[in-house]
Amino acid sequence: MASGFGERLRVSIYGESHGNGIGALIEGLPAGEAVDYDRLMRFMERRQGGRNALSTARKEPDIPEFVSGIFDGRTTGFPVCIRIANTNTRSGDYSNLAMKPRPSHADYPAYIKWHGAADMRGGGHFSGRLTAPLCAAGGIALQILARHNIFVGAHLSSIGTVCDDTFPILPDAALFDTVAQKAFPVISDEKGARMQEEILAAREALDSVGGTIECMVTGLPAGLGDPMFDGMENRLARVLFGIPAVKGVEFGDGFALSQMRGSQANDPYRTDTDGNIVTETNRNGGILGGITTGMPLRFRVGIKPTPSIAQPQKTVSLPDGQETTLEIKGRHDPCIAQRAVPVIEAAAALTVLDVLLCDKGAL
Amino acid sequence: MASGFGERLRVSIYGESHGNGIGALIEGLPAGEAVDYDRLMRFMERRQGGRNALSTARKEPDIPEFVSGIFDGRTTGFPVCIRIANTNTRSGDYSNLAMKPRPSHADYPAYIKWHGAADMRGGGHFSGRLTAPLCAAGGIALQILARHNIFVGAHLSSIGTVCDDTFPILPDAALFDTVAQKAFPVISDEKGARMQEEILAAREALDSVGGTIECMVTGLPAGLGDPMFDGMENRLARVLFGIPAVKGVEFGDGFALSQMRGSQANDPYRTDTDGNIVTETNRNGGILGGITTGMPLRFRVGIKPTPSIAQPQKTVSLPDGQETTLEIKGRHDPCIAQRAVPVIEAAAALTVLDVLLCDKGAL
Amino acid sequence: MASGFGERLRVSIYGESHGNGIGALIEGLPAGEAVDYDRLMRFMERRQGGRNALSTARKEPDIPEFVSGIFDGRTTGFPVCIRIANTNTRSGDYSNLAMKPRPSHADYPAYIKWHGAADMRGGGHFSGRLTAPLCAAGGIALQILARHNIFVGAHLSSIGTVCDDTFPILPDAALFDTVAQKAFPVISDEKGARMQEEILAAREALDSVGGTIECMVTGLPAGLGDPMFDGMENRLARVLFGIPAVKGVEFGDGFALSQMRGSQANDPYRTDTDGNIVTETNRNGGILGGITTGMPLRFRVGIKPTPSIAQPQKTVSLPDGQETTLEIKGRHDPCIAQRAVPVIEAAAALTVLDVLLCDKGAL
Amino acid sequence: MASGFGERLRVSIYGESHGNGIGALIEGLPAGEAVDYDRLMRFMERRQGGRNALSTARKEPDIPEFVSGIFDGRTTGFPVCIRIANTNTRSGDYSNLAMKPRPSHADYPAYIKWHGAADMRGGGHFSGRLTAPLCAAGGIALQILARHNIFVGAHLSSIGTVCDDTFPILPDAALFDTVAQKAFPVISDEKGARMQEEILAAREALDSVGGTIECMVTGLPAGLGDPMFDGMENRLARVLFGIPAVKGVEFGDGFALSQMRGSQANDPYRTDTDGNIVTETNRNGGILGGITTGMPLRFRVGIKPTPSIAQPQKTVSLPDGQETTLEIKGRHDPCIAQRAVPVIEAAAALTVLDVLLCDKGAL
Repeated sequence: MASGFGERLRVSIYGESHGNGIGALIEGLPAGEAVDYDRLMRFMERRQGGRNALSTARKEPDIPEFVSGIFDGRTTGFPVCIRIANTNTRSGDYSNLAMKPRPSHADYPAYIKWHGAADMRGGGHFSGRLTAPLCAAGGIALQILARHNIFVGAHLSSIGTVCDDTFPILPDAALFDTVAQKAFPVISDEKGARMQEEILAAREALDSVGGTIECMVTGLPAGLGDPMFDGMENRLARVLFGIPAVKGVEFGDGFALSQMRGSQANDPYRTDTDGNIVTETNRNGGILGGITTGMPLRFRVGIKPTPSIAQPQKTVSLPDGQETTLEIKGRHDPCIAQRAVPVIEAAAALTVLDVLLCDKGAL
Repeated sequence: MASGFGERLRVSIYGESHGNGIGALIEGLPAGEAVDYDRLMRFMERRQGGRNALSTARKEPDIPEFVSGIFDGRTTGFPVCIRIANTNTRSGDYSNLAMKPRPSHADYPAYIKWHGAADMRGGGHFSGRLTAPLCAAGGIALQILARHNIFVGAHLSSIGTVCDDTFPILPDAALFDTVAQKAFPVISDEKGARMQEEILAAREALDSVGGTIECMVTGLPAGLGDPMFDGMENRLARVLFGIPAVKGVEFGDGFALSQMRGSQANDPYRTDTDGNIVTETNRNGGILGGITTGMPLRFRVGIKPTPSIAQPQKTVSLPDGQETTLEIKGRHDPCIAQRAVPVIEAAAALTVLDVLLCDKGAL
Repeated sequence: MASGFGERLRVSIYGESHGNGIGALIEGLPAGEAVDYDRLMRFMERRQGGRNALSTARKEPDIPEFVSGIFDGRTTGFPVCIRIANTNTRSGDYSNLAMKPRPSHADYPAYIKWHGAADMRGGGHFSGRLTAPLCAAGGIALQILARHNIFVGAHLSSIGTVCDDTFPILPDAALFDTVAQKAFPVISDEKGARMQEEILAAREALDSVGGTIECMVTGLPAGLGDPMFDGMENRLARVLFGIPAVKGVEFGDGFALSQMRGSQANDPYRTDTDGNIVTETNRNGGILGGITTGMPLRFRVGIKPTPSIAQPQKTVSLPDGQETTLEIKGRHDPCIAQRAVPVIEAAAALTVLDVLLCDKGAL
Repeated sequence: MASGFGERLRVSIYGESHGNGIGALIEGLPAGEAVDYDRLMRFMERRQGGRNALSTARKEPDIPEFVSGIFDGRTTGFPVCIRIANTNTRSGDYSNLAMKPRPSHADYPAYIKWHGAADMRGGGHFSGRLTAPLCAAGGIALQILARHNIFVGAHLSSIGTVCDDTFPILPDAALFDTVAQKAFPVISDEKGARMQEEILAAREALDSVGGTIECMVTGLPAGLGDPMFDGMENRLARVLFGIPAVKGVEFGDGFALSQMRGSQANDPYRTDTDGNIVTETNRNGGILGGITTGMPLRFRVGIKPTPSIAQPQKTVSLPDGQETTLEIKGRHDPCIAQRAVPVIEAAAALTVLDVLLCDKGAL
């Protein structure tokens, strides 16, 4: 139903950009799992803006409060309700947008769907701010998975046309950590510097720019996921497309596979020195028929440029449909891809944990 | 649960490539809808192989039997069970594959998941043959949607590196029909000829090749879909990744958006001559925030090359993991993208009909 | 969605009384489980009518065909499609009922819901005949559970006002077998004889009579089920009310508890000679807070008298609503409670197996 | 998933008796619906204790805060998160119960399920206190339904062996209001006085007593609900068994039908003076085949006596299983049935609204 996902681990996101608060409800977390609050805070800080010229000037502390389900630093097995206060809302900034839908935002379809009743101040429930509770929930999942030697890492694989290197076929958790600790989450700092130039150039042009993120999950056993419509790809894609601005999802080499011959695209099996069956390449991203192969799970998402730009744009007034122009003032990111990196990790961690709980009953 | 999808319209696919039969169970179809059997057969024939050198020599009539839910040519409102007999199975062809997983097929993860118990002859439940019942179900949905002026059309947008033109921003149903009636479903026959050369060249090299498919849905009102995780993108992606060999899904300009500036990527609003609010471009594919804008819904899928190739491939024997080689005899398509075109239409039609039923209760 | 239930084990029932066939689709059965076909047939025969004066003269062989998911006598892990042919349909018997809804059947609400489009011949999808595929699915679940020392047994606890004894607090599987093998599934044959007199008297009076069924499940570990709305009680009740004519469900002493004091109703804990924690009584039916206690799960259902009676009844003609009378000819059971006994066992087995798969991932 | 229910209107309950807070997340409420806060408070007060000798001395204000989804007194269409603070917790009272499971509470199965990790202070997530957020959610649903002339009313139909009258076949909303405004929600005040004597007698005996509640929903059109496992009965039963202490649910005359002949139990159709098709009696409770008939929906629940009693009880210590006795001090209701009356109304309202949204898409 709409703002939730998951089968045995169910996550629902609530709140609006300018309402009383935002948060997440998590049902089905295993009981007795420690939650390291400081580590969770550090994870959540990775998606926060306001730290430099690359992102919005809106600064919010994003401090998650555990309303239920966590007692003495451990999960109780009961639903975990997380709440994050909205403290820095300036609705005035949006007042002139009320009846002029911003191009490529959800304003217009939301206006039609709820015949004007939705609270769309600041993007309402569609705001990128709603990824904060997703990160809070995902940060808990990441801690649980790490205890079982399952690690999730993502990095900026491109901004505009500037591409970074990719993770190696078999990355280790230390590499994920290294990238995660950077203010700008790239593998190659040189490429990262060029990406930042792209972002600043877009900003200077009163414009915005898109990017891509590559994500990997290591440590998953083979055989996870259900066939057809509940495989790993299906479940991940469903969640990933719920992250604002994601317009493409591909697994392994994805769309590039469509240009290959089978002899290039197939991943031959071999036995490694420990006697494990592995593939020499991993063009399928660790998933065949929707089910994990035991190789690292790998996918990439494409993120469109922030729709909010400072240039005047053509739009119409509602409900009369009269053509007009719109200037968005407010505080906006010239690029959201770098802030979306931990969000992608959070989404992947929650989905993977759900599949594990479905298939194993417990960890 | 695994082989099914949908909320108010639920479709479940059953069967194995070499079992007694395959089929689909459809729950929630509106009552009293006429089902034109001949038209359904013509739709299903579009995915059938065995008609020329481009596809497998396995010929199956694929005649859907309505076991329940359809009476006197109309839906009754009760679950529709469709059954298609398996008539042309030659299991002998696969006997030597039993314990040697074919690279990039589901054989290995399926072996691990079900500890060898799954009936994987011919790919079992993962076989591309299971798209026949999906087409049977989708063909019914297409007929229902057409009665409400909602049309779904797909075409081969590329094979290997050969690309075809794309549908116009506002395609009409006649164009969809024209493409659908071609033996090779392309817009430009000249590009189609070059694509076919690619396929035949791959076949000659004992190899296979991938491709992409573009799909559009016209006639949808604005405001369909739920926010976040049950939007149009989320639901479509979940289903599309259930089609064998699909490894990437993108909406609108998808990954290309990640290389654009916001000023290029945003779709400005205007009012058309009939007074309807439309966008000048449709780079977002008719979906914003997961919800339809009233512009045509547009997406693209990337399909990997058929994993079954006639060249010897490296693999291991199971369960001991000894390295060996494998030669796949059998009957296989050098490319499955052209046969997947109606499958994509079927998946889109079923998903769109489900969302309509969720949001409107009835049509 | 309507005709299906279950989370990790999903069962969907399809078919109409007078259509081509009826059946069940079962998704999520564990792989590699043996299915003893003869034993399944014997289980299904328990619900069949036509054996004596107590039930309908309609005789159907009810032979389940495994269309998919079972290979060489074992489950493959893929969806199991079961089909049962409809062979003995005499639609003529129902022709005059078409527009006169039978009192207390689903005819009238079905007519309104599907505006006359539903195929209601013989009760359509609402017919008691649809419990045959439920038994086929449940019979497989019973075989799987028995391998894990989980046994399900039900008996007729009353017909009209004649009550039988109840199962002991800790019944063993042999007692379940003994009851199951009786043509009339009661504990006390003397009480059974009086029940049969009740049924025959109702028949003679051109009338019908209701009854109750008690069911127990032994061998379940403590701790199964989810809190609040997905507990054992919630899931069982949802399924049990899907069996035609069930109008009441109670767990443990059920409604009788409402007349007790807490000191009578509470089940005190003690430790048995094997060191297991048990309760002295089991008034709560082995479930507290929706979760199993390790004591036998116990519930009772109330079944209304067959609505089809041979007496003239007041009804209206549709769609004009003119008042008229109706005489139901056809072939009908004067009581269906005795035939519902294995159906209740099937429903319980499927629900219990689903909860086990949810909580344990596998058996 | 456990603590939530509903298909198009999804309600999830969170919180523990002695945690930071409790609440509900409601997804899928129609947009633009007014929420009368004062009226909601008055509804919630009906379930509160601490007002007289009949209930617990624990007094909580139970003030619902709308964290999201309600703006300027109207629903926005986005998820509604409701939070209620826990202000009056005295965990000391429960300290000695930690390792001694209270008979007929969820303590023991919860201990096994979550291996001691669950926060069971005050009953944790199983506490009757969690019905407060259910009432908050249900109170909003009741306001929405009333705007569409659908009314829900419940009353105490018995306490112990003292029974009250039942609602008439066609009750009007005024009668529901009259009962709702009574401190003790009965139809006959004389019967109510005797019921209260029962409760006080139980209290005096350091004991508790159970009861039953009858509930009706008027104004529903015919044709609502899905067949088999998603009918009105199935959905209501699933939710009702999620209310603590409910051990039985019956529709219409329920278990009493099992003692009747068909000629008594069937509801004959006739046409009323307005030309509507109605039934003369309503023994089936306005539901046939799971689908509404247009007659008032009617059901009854059986509620067991409060398991917390002041008498010493036999139990065991955990985890060693040593036999011991337990004396529960704390603050407890000698009967919870009278406080459960609005909870039953809330559960019914939410379920009915969900079915309406499923079937109609909107109201």
